[in-house]
Amino acid sequence: MERVTRFGVSLDSELLDRFDKFVKRKGYANRSKAIESIIRDYLIQSEWEMEEKEVAGTITMVYNHEKTDLVDILTDIQHQHRDLVVSSMHVHLDEHNCLEVLATRGKSSDIREIADKLICTKGVKHGKLIITTTGH
Amino acid sequence: MERVTRFGVSLDSELLDRFDKFVKRKGYANRSKAIESIIRDYLIQSEWEMEEKEVAGTITMVYNHEKTDLVDILTDIQHQHRDLVVSSMHVHLDEHNCLEVLATRGKSSDIREIADKLICTKGVKHGKLIITTTGH
Amino acid sequence: MERVTRFGVSLDSELLDRFDKFVKRKGYANRSKAIESIIRDYLIQSEWEMEEKEVAGTITMVYNHEKTDLVDILTDIQHQHRDLVVSSMHVHLDEHNCLEVLATRGKSSDIREIADKLICTKGVKHGKLIITTTGH
Amino acid sequence: MERVTRFGVSLDSELLDRFDKFVKRKGYANRSKAIESIIRDYLIQSEWEMEEKEVAGTITMVYNHEKTDLVDILTDIQHQHRDLVVSSMHVHLDEHNCLEVLATRGKSSDIREIADKLICTKGVKHGKLIITTTGH
Repeated sequence: MERVTRFGVSLDSELLDRFDKFVKRKGYANRSKAIESIIRDYLIQSEWEMEEKEVAGTITMVYNHEKTDLVDILTDIQHQHRDLVVSSMHVHLDEHNCLEVLATRGKSSDIREIADKLICTKGVKHGKLIITTTGH
Repeated sequence: MERVTRFGVSLDSELLDRFDKFVKRKGYANRSKAIESIIRDYLIQSEWEMEEKEVAGTITMVYNHEKTDLVDILTDIQHQHRDLVVSSMHVHLDEHNCLEVLATRGKSSDIREIADKLICTKGVKHGKLIITTTGH
Repeated sequence: MERVTRFGVSLDSELLDRFDKFVKRKGYANRSKAIESIIRDYLIQSEWEMEEKEVAGTITMVYNHEKTDLVDILTDIQHQHRDLVVSSMHVHLDEHNCLEVLATRGKSSDIREIADKLICTKGVKHGKLIITTTGH
Repeated sequence: MERVTRFGVSLDSELLDRFDKFVKRKGYANRSKAIESIIRDYLIQSEWEMEEKEVAGTITMVYNHEKTDLVDILTDIQHQHRDLVVSSMHVHLDEHNCLEVLATRGKSSDIREIADKLICTKGVKHGKLIITTTGH
């Protein structure tokens, strides 16, 4: 039988307001159910990220390609880690902005590391790593 | 000044154990801080997903291409929504498994819808949508 | 000094008419200059294709994804040769037609072989292999 | 009935030697047959390139990403013509060299123009445009 533990959480009130709207919008029975769902989702990601075995992953970035040296820096980082970066796809969103997504495979901690480097590069507006299974 | 609200949460005990390990591993001060962080991250994604203005997004999937009709079904769904799907990139992970990532742009709710259709297709082992800004 | 050899060529008259228009349109001085130019271009491709050392290449295909089993067959061929096919990119041209381009690397003769297999698959409307240098 | 026209061609002798080896290697009956075959192939490409209706195309390039400003220039050209460039895929061949392939669609003459601009950029080692049908 499933055992349940009850504990207290302190949250910024303004954030809690936004979260309550999210809980309602998504149709969760209550806050606990919503928190359970997103924790479960987070742990899966996090546990994949700790795996020692080979994983696959995608790194999504949006950036302004006109920013001085930005494209060069991002390309350099990828070339240094070309054993991890299989290929990348680039979409020209508008005159200034690019959507770039990298397909990667390798040890999870290594992919995490290159993702952090890329996403933290000054000028990258948004970046996100998805670690996934290689399907085995 | 930041106001804080305290409330109770009920969680499956086994999940809470795993979560506590995650909290420790990531170096959060306590459960509340960790929950605050992941809720914040989740809301950003969720609020982008509700945007009426144009967004960009990537959909990452892993699947076994030998599964009967699976590739056909996934290709059909993408063609029906080719106004949203700019292009896709495909990596052959091994004899059986594919990593596919789609670059999409359009109304957030529309991208959410096609992502759900693709990810829920029988045979898709893991799928994940990232909604991001077009950079404006 | 450059030596020149003169020889006779027999060509289908209708094809020669079209070729003469091409020669004029492209601004070549005469037929010989045009033939020299395209032979030179062809030999470069052909000599790259004979290389024993590693080359890079792209395979461009247009096909109707609704054709029974076609997507499956093309995906199977690629998976069997996944040591050569780095990744592929897919654009949904319209409801029926796909543009797919594969990035490949490996021995030239092996890439030639998989290109022939793919391009000759029934239902592929047009296919073309470009062999290029890896830049060394 | 097929009519045949005979005419004389002057070719650099060294190039003709290489061409004769090509003719033999490919198993053509004679020089005329080989020239007919490559002219036919060239005209198809060339006639597609003159089409006023929409075509699809891929542009394949190999370049050294470390060359000052090169990646910036190539990215700029693509952004200026983002109505033609659907997306691009990038493979890191080694520490220095990149294979990039662009999927394009639009008027053939426009695609030809951007291909020429990209391929002629100083530092691009090899570039090639393939114009193909959109499948209609």
